[in-house]
Amino acid sequence: MRLSSYFMPTLKETPAEAEIVSHRCMLRAGMVRQASSGIYSWLPLGLKVLRRIEQIVREEQNAMGGQELLMPTIQSAELWRESGRYDDYGKEMLRIKDRHDRDMLYGPTNEELITDIFRTSVRSYRQLPKQLYHIQWKFRDEIRPRFGVMRGREFLMKDAYSFDLDYESAVKSYNRQFVAYLRTFERMGLKAIPMAADTGPIGGDLSHEFIILAETGESEVFCHRDWLETSLKGVDVDYGGDLQPIVDKYTGLYAATDEIHDPGNCPVPEADLIKMRGIEVGHIFYFGTKYSAPLGAEVAAHDGSAGPVHMGSYGIGVSRLVGGIIEASHDDKGIVWPEEVTPFAVGLVNMRTGDAACDGACEDLYAKLNAAGVEALYDDRDERAGGKLADMDLIGLPWQVIVGPRGLKNGVVEVKNRKTGETEELSPEAVLNRFASR
Amino acid sequence: MRLSSYFMPTLKETPAEAEIVSHRCMLRAGMVRQASSGIYSWLPLGLKVLRRIEQIVREEQNAMGGQELLMPTIQSAELWRESGRYDDYGKEMLRIKDRHDRDMLYGPTNEELITDIFRTSVRSYRQLPKQLYHIQWKFRDEIRPRFGVMRGREFLMKDAYSFDLDYESAVKSYNRQFVAYLRTFERMGLKAIPMAADTGPIGGDLSHEFIILAETGESEVFCHRDWLETSLKGVDVDYGGDLQPIVDKYTGLYAATDEIHDPGNCPVPEADLIKMRGIEVGHIFYFGTKYSAPLGAEVAAHDGSAGPVHMGSYGIGVSRLVGGIIEASHDDKGIVWPEEVTPFAVGLVNMRTGDAACDGACEDLYAKLNAAGVEALYDDRDERAGGKLADMDLIGLPWQVIVGPRGLKNGVVEVKNRKTGETEELSPEAVLNRFASR
Repeated sequence: MRLSSYFMPTLKETPAEAEIVSHRCMLRAGMVRQASSGIYSWLPLGLKVLRRIEQIVREEQNAMGGQELLMPTIQSAELWRESGRYDDYGKEMLRIKDRHDRDMLYGPTNEELITDIFRTSVRSYRQLPKQLYHIQWKFRDEIRPRFGVMRGREFLMKDAYSFDLDYESAVKSYNRQFVAYLRTFERMGLKAIPMAADTGPIGGDLSHEFIILAETGESEVFCHRDWLETSLKGVDVDYGGDLQPIVDKYTGLYAATDEIHDPGNCPVPEADLIKMRGIEVGHIFYFGTKYSAPLGAEVAAHDGSAGPVHMGSYGIGVSRLVGGIIEASHDDKGIVWPEEVTPFAVGLVNMRTGDAACDGACEDLYAKLNAAGVEALYDDRDERAGGKLADMDLIGLPWQVIVGPRGLKNGVVEVKNRKTGETEELSPEAVLNRFASR
Repeated sequence: MRLSSYFMPTLKETPAEAEIVSHRCMLRAGMVRQASSGIYSWLPLGLKVLRRIEQIVREEQNAMGGQELLMPTIQSAELWRESGRYDDYGKEMLRIKDRHDRDMLYGPTNEELITDIFRTSVRSYRQLPKQLYHIQWKFRDEIRPRFGVMRGREFLMKDAYSFDLDYESAVKSYNRQFVAYLRTFERMGLKAIPMAADTGPIGGDLSHEFIILAETGESEVFCHRDWLETSLKGVDVDYGGDLQPIVDKYTGLYAATDEIHDPGNCPVPEADLIKMRGIEVGHIFYFGTKYSAPLGAEVAAHDGSAGPVHMGSYGIGVSRLVGGIIEASHDDKGIVWPEEVTPFAVGLVNMRTGDAACDGACEDLYAKLNAAGVEALYDDRDERAGGKLADMDLIGLPWQVIVGPRGLKNGVVEVKNRKTGETEELSPEAVLNRFASR
């Protein structure tokens, strides 16, 4: 993509309303634009990141055995009356009357609707277990939306629902999601720590929050220092096998939010305890028959007896993650995208647009990168070199290829790693070989 | 995907509320499920088709020079008051009050919001032309929703917006979309005919509806018989070049809806006139400064003078197309998917699940098709062969591979073309070679 025609309206000044770094970076880089309080338009650069995150979530849900469907944003109030949550949910639920004066609502979550789909479709244990998920916009009418996409009103969430015959089987489904979450966040370059959690208004018995570490995080978390070394890299996960050992290993290490952590009663010696800040990006629950019982979602067991199906729900804040990743990965110049979610693989900077040598070398590199399937953002604008470099640092692509007249005289261009700041001088051919072979 | 674990709740009986064939097929095949009046959940099979159609639309918009962004579903009423449409729009607009009693609405279209994004981002002719689009759920509170996804309340639409300095340039943008629409629908296996149209509540000067031919279509259309022969296949479209000849060729042939067609005053001799039924699947408009003037979206021209930008808008009913394609391509057994939008490339039917030879041959074929990247839906259910064949016809995959004990004794399986009904007997290896090389 050529920056001269790309719709990426960067801002020179930081809007006053942006209190946190991800919000500032996203506005300044032209990733999002506020449409109204807590509601954002995703501009092309931001949408590319959102889609990459969404795709990682989708792939890991599919690998775990999830099946994707898509429920609508607008729901009828009837089902919520059946579950008893319509009156309980409070003002965060956006309530709507349609033209026939029927009570509708913009779904803040989908337990009721998925239970309705299930109860009219599945009758027998032979069709279990099932994991169904969707990635859809939700609305929660926060009283004071802030922090950009981190606490917006309209937000994109992956919510999955598991259906099992009994508790033992439901725990297996829970464990599959537990491991899928570890893999999902690790693929995005994040350190995500599952922490035992209150089940809150959704209710249930077994629940973990997944919290990513970021200095600028919203809450304080405490964990054993061994957490920093844990990784599923190289672990061959078999979703058909017993995942309990992996779950036990992770849940055996101490980790708690400040709501739960009690300094006077902590099992970890102070020398091994790390205090950091974190951001919640996922939440998983087992809640048994909380919805299936009132909604009458029953399945027949092997012996023919019918009973309410056991359910769990599993959320990931997809749009929230865009902000969360920036909170976890930035410096004072701007964003530092992990390779797995970057909107473009490479930024190509023409330091002197209009100079025949620079233009020729850039056009050639750009064409060859494209031909090799490497997505490059080419800054071909007729602007000052300093401004171009600052913009490229701000939007945070992991690699910059900087083409200037002085280097070209020696047959080289500069390759800069955004994260480390390290630079190398390479011939254009060597640049091409490096990125085309990645 | 194995049908034994796939969430595809087919229905034996046709729900009484389904008046048209696409609605009946989609409910019976387990593609969608009504959530409330005019609002549907897309089950896995339906979602796969929806995503394939969406992806074709996206690719053709990108090829034409469109840039994708994503505006939210919920908008503030303020912008609609600026344009003057808030009071005009009527009861089809879903109006909402948030917890602070602010007027909000579920976007039925996005002219106001995109104009707002544009006016705060672009100031100069140097940044023009621009085509921005998004693919997002819309809501129109139809008084009597019906025909399933063909006239639902919550529906997925691609809406694009063009921005140009003047009329001449705007016509070029309009022509690019005109040609992109021809290509888009042709790729889906549809015959779509652009017809000069009223501009309706959106307003404007230059407008075409794109109508696909289907015997069960909602409206009567009249066109010159040469329309049936027109095609862009083999035409090398250059979006940077002059597209007027292509547009002239298409608009030069007579085509009109029954609202406009006047039998007493038709330029086409009766022998050359075809009367058919059609379904509107797209609509394009040039409307000049209708929104940019009241909203103050101005750009500076070469001479420094500022004026309102010239705009057009371009819609495709993405979810409507799922129904539209079924209306255009079905028989009395069910759906007949064009290859380009089919949810799976091949259906693999095990005629006798439990029979060692059938199971072995199917498992082997299924594994090898998967390995070759051919998406197969494998009916491994322990059910009657007749029911399996009927289900496979109903869901309409273009090819069926039918594996039975009798054929296997002779080393062959049956390959059936869903559209023509033609069958062939081939060895499993030959089946694999055929599909793997497609």
